[in-house]
Amino acid sequence: MLQSQLFTKTRKDAPKDEVAKNAELLIRAGFIHKEMAGVYSYLPLGLRVLNKIAEIIRREMNAIGGQEVFMTTLQSKELWEKTGRWSDEKVDNWFKTKLKNGTELGLGFTHEEMLTAIMAEEVKSYKDLPRYVYQIQTKFRNEARAKSGIMRGREFMMKDLYSFSRDEKEHEAFYKKSQGAYMKVFESVGLGEKTYLTFASGGVFSKYSHEFQTLTSAGEDLVYICDKCRIAVNKEIIEDQKNACPQCGNKKLREEKAVEVGNIFPLGTRFSDALGLKYLDEKGESKSVVMGSYGIGLGRLMGTIVEVFADDVGIVWPKEVSPFAVHLVSLAGEDAKVKKSADALYKKLTSQGIEVLYDDRDARAGEKFADSDLIGIPVRVVVSAKTLEKDSYEIKDRKTGQTEIVKEEVLLKIFR
Amino acid sequence: MLQSQLFTKTRKDAPKDEVAKNAELLIRAGFIHKEMAGVYSYLPLGLRVLNKIAEIIRREMNAIGGQEVFMTTLQSKELWEKTGRWSDEKVDNWFKTKLKNGTELGLGFTHEEMLTAIMAEEVKSYKDLPRYVYQIQTKFRNEARAKSGIMRGREFMMKDLYSFSRDEKEHEAFYKKSQGAYMKVFESVGLGEKTYLTFASGGVFSKYSHEFQTLTSAGEDLVYICDKCRIAVNKEIIEDQKNACPQCGNKKLREEKAVEVGNIFPLGTRFSDALGLKYLDEKGESKSVVMGSYGIGLGRLMGTIVEVFADDVGIVWPKEVSPFAVHLVSLAGEDAKVKKSADALYKKLTSQGIEVLYDDRDARAGEKFADSDLIGIPVRVVVSAKTLEKDSYEIKDRKTGQTEIVKEEVLLKIFR
Repeated sequence: MLQSQLFTKTRKDAPKDEVAKNAELLIRAGFIHKEMAGVYSYLPLGLRVLNKIAEIIRREMNAIGGQEVFMTTLQSKELWEKTGRWSDEKVDNWFKTKLKNGTELGLGFTHEEMLTAIMAEEVKSYKDLPRYVYQIQTKFRNEARAKSGIMRGREFMMKDLYSFSRDEKEHEAFYKKSQGAYMKVFESVGLGEKTYLTFASGGVFSKYSHEFQTLTSAGEDLVYICDKCRIAVNKEIIEDQKNACPQCGNKKLREEKAVEVGNIFPLGTRFSDALGLKYLDEKGESKSVVMGSYGIGLGRLMGTIVEVFADDVGIVWPKEVSPFAVHLVSLAGEDAKVKKSADALYKKLTSQGIEVLYDDRDARAGEKFADSDLIGIPVRVVVSAKTLEKDSYEIKDRKTGQTEIVKEEVLLKIFR
Repeated sequence: MLQSQLFTKTRKDAPKDEVAKNAELLIRAGFIHKEMAGVYSYLPLGLRVLNKIAEIIRREMNAIGGQEVFMTTLQSKELWEKTGRWSDEKVDNWFKTKLKNGTELGLGFTHEEMLTAIMAEEVKSYKDLPRYVYQIQTKFRNEARAKSGIMRGREFMMKDLYSFSRDEKEHEAFYKKSQGAYMKVFESVGLGEKTYLTFASGGVFSKYSHEFQTLTSAGEDLVYICDKCRIAVNKEIIEDQKNACPQCGNKKLREEKAVEVGNIFPLGTRFSDALGLKYLDEKGESKSVVMGSYGIGLGRLMGTIVEVFADDVGIVWPKEVSPFAVHLVSLAGEDAKVKKSADALYKKLTSQGIEVLYDDRDARAGEKFADSDLIGIPVRVVVSAKTLEKDSYEIKDRKTGQTEIVKEEVLLKIFR
């Protein structure tokens, strides 16, 4: 894409009320626009990142048998009364609205109720199970405070998967499998090394649920890491665990600040009992379906990536989620030969399916370099009179800052 | 995909309160689930169709320079008060909600206000124009009645593009260009022959706006077609036009029922003036940006396709938007040889990137054929003991009903 055509520009300052580093950088670089606290629109660069994260999640959910759906935001009161979650006293972050005839509706903050009701129409026999259903869809949560940028939104995109199993054993097998899929997601977006499977409170139906916690000073949570098992325990249950690792009993746990980038939760038969989701087993006996829920907030993941990797001059995208693979910067000025060379390279790269942001703007070198650092595409390629003299290009690694002068054939190999 | 794994099943009846043919068929075939009047979830088959429509629209919007964004549902009152569209007396289909602190919010039924405010931060000079920005995003409209299935939803997915031009001339050129892009969308989804560019009322800033009307008996609109120009006039302005074609004056217009599948609208400077979207021209003078808006409802388009092509036994998808390219139906029963052959064909087709729904269920032939007709995938391939005897497969065209016995090499060529 030609940067001269991109409708967003970088800016010096984020809105004054913005206190989160992730949102501040993303706004300054033109990835998002703040509509109000906790409510952000995604602009072209930001949407590209969000879509890449979505595709990685989709790939891993499909790989463990997930079937994708797209449920609605509008929720009927009757459905939620059946599980006792309609009242604002029970759930304190509902957004509610009304039909013209006065019927009260809610805006979905999660979708257990709706999907369980759908499945109750589809599942009759043990042959219809297990099933795994997910969506990537906008959630609404009426947070009293929303100060963490895109890491805690009032409106945000979430992947929520729900599992429907015949019994605890079948549930448990998928629950384990989902942990592997989740780790693959976090590895793919570049957060693998910093992300820990974390033991959390399990609710009524299970001793534990699990979170995936990514270490960062921007985190709102505290976790306790067992380096032997490479797992963590969250603050909520660390005392119950007597400050020891639930797997190996290790008492030398390391306290770290972290952000919860995903969570998986055994639901037992709470929702299937309340909403009549039963099946006939091999003997013709009616049984309740055993459920689990599995969430990843896409904006939170994107915000965490920004928080973890950003440096003093801007964002640093891991290549898997970068809006573009290359930032091609032309320092042509009035030099037609440089412009021609940069245009040709842009054409060649894009024709090979490489995603290029091409800074073809008429601007000073310093401004272009500062913008490039702020936007954070992993590889920068500079074309200038100086590089042309050597019949080469300058490439710079955004993360390490290392530069190199390379010939075209070497350059093209980098992106293969 | 294995049909035995698909969590949806076909059903004999749609919900009793469902009166629209499109929703009735889509529910019975397992494409959508009705949550309440005008509010439908998309199940795996339905989401596949919706995504294909989205990709076609995206391709054509990108081709005319569209930059994709994703704005928010939650809307601030202050923004809409500036254009006089906040009051329920002015706009009668708002859904409204509240923050915990009492602040009133709206759920976006369109996004002129939000995007104009964003552009006011980005556009400063004539060099920043023109720009074309679109999104594919959920809209909320509090319709008093919602009886047209997915053709008129209270919550529905829409592509909305907005154009920002320096002057009327630049606006007009894009407005014309958008008509071509729109017709390409309707041609690509299979509705080209039945869809007419239709003259409609233009509002304050222009004599005309334009709709795209698809002829179908399910349509809520009446249009008047000029067969000479291949355009139409909508009912609203036909009397003003003295019952004549606005292009050639032809008075022999044909009245038809139709559904509006898209519309494009010149907005002039109404929104840019209200929200301060100005630019400095070449002479340094401040000018208002000239805008246009361009909408396509994805659900409405999907519903129209169902209404137009469905026959007595079910849905008939045009191949470009079909959830799968092939419905492979195995009549194996207990016959291991048939099962092996069908499994092998499934593997071969999918390995070539062909999208296959494979009916591997243990069910009677009649049931499988009825389901296949209802679901409406364009090509059905049957593998049975009878076809195996001839070392062949039976293919059936869903639209024409024609069957043919073909060898594997011929079959594979069909999908190339």
